[in-house]
Amino acid sequence: MPRQVDHQQRRTLVARALWRVIAEQGLEAASLREVAAAAGVSIGQLQHYFGSKESMLRFTIEQLAEETGGRILNLAAAGGPVLDVLRRVVAELVPSTPERRIEQSAWTAFLAHSAVDHEIARILRDQYRASRAVLEQSLRHAQAAGEVGPSVDPGVAAATLLALVDGLSIQAELDDLDPALIDHALDAHFARLREAP
Amino acid sequence: MPRQVDHQQRRTLVARALWRVIAEQGLEAASLREVAAAAGVSIGQLQHYFGSKESMLRFTIEQLAEETGGRILNLAAAGGPVLDVLRRVVAELVPSTPERRIEQSAWTAFLAHSAVDHEIARILRDQYRASRAVLEQSLRHAQAAGEVGPSVDPGVAAATLLALVDGLSIQAELDDLDPALIDHALDAHFARLREAP
Repeated sequence: MPRQVDHQQRRTLVARALWRVIAEQGLEAASLREVAAAAGVSIGQLQHYFGSKESMLRFTIEQLAEETGGRILNLAAAGGPVLDVLRRVVAELVPSTPERRIEQSAWTAFLAHSAVDHEIARILRDQYRASRAVLEQSLRHAQAAGEVGPSVDPGVAAATLLALVDGLSIQAELDDLDPALIDHALDAHFARLREAP
Repeated sequence: MPRQVDHQQRRTLVARALWRVIAEQGLEAASLREVAAAAGVSIGQLQHYFGSKESMLRFTIEQLAEETGGRILNLAAAGGPVLDVLRRVVAELVPSTPERRIEQSAWTAFLAHSAVDHEIARILRDQYRASRAVLEQSLRHAQAAGEVGPSVDPGVAAATLLALVDGLSIQAELDDLDPALIDHALDAHFARLREAP
């Protein structure tokens, strides 16, 4: 078991190195050589961990989604009304720190790459479907608790919320949007959900 | 003048070929050779029109923005309440046809590329600022006409609307979102703007 854990830790380390390389140099620059150098391992070790560049990319997306999922679970664990939890989650998803911006850049690179790589497209599609399903479920809970009016369609509201996160993240990534304005935009959106008839 | 027009037409033709290459093969594959072949011109002609790959990329983004701007002006020319015009414009911006999807793929590729290319980042930033300014101005007009309640901050609402367009476009591009759901999401958002106190 300890060797298993070590293997997983090193894969995680490489995944972090990979998304740093992607954010700084673009996905096309993310050769085995570059990523091995950034992670401080040999190319041989890298191949041992992943087998192929494709499997490295796949693991990195899943790692990114898993770490984000972990942060969301932590926020949810703090409890409170469902809509308050969702508000905290959404704020966490729009990048506001340099580290989150690196993740956002890597995510945008994968989105662009999905146009020419069916396997990456499939993984991203699964991620978006899963995210929408979680958001929809949360919004149903909020509705059942009377936090959101019955006129709101949870499926539509979930897609809208995810779109807001992606769209505001793009504007934040371009270094173009005041964080206070992002907060204000999210507050206004959540206020409309709360006040829906 | 005719030669000038011809030159411009050929540049436009090349720009369209370029964003097709980008959408189908990725931005990194958009070599002068590939783009010349896709546009049916020689590499020498391509270099004559643009001078460099960078200037070709720059022209292509501006061309994309200009064509989109032209479509928006056409929609606005049909007249009607400001918010109805905005609703039509936003529907036009979320890709619903194969041609629009190609443009969206190219746009996503440029967004990803902006992380590693300061000049592209600057151009995109200018585009986003200009788009937000136009949307904000339109929302102010709508507010002055009583179509939007005084509680809405036009600057915040403009960033939100732009975020919705980008975010829904990403989900549409991944072929993951029912067009009827996109319509429903936009209708719900505009209804909330109309009903704002």
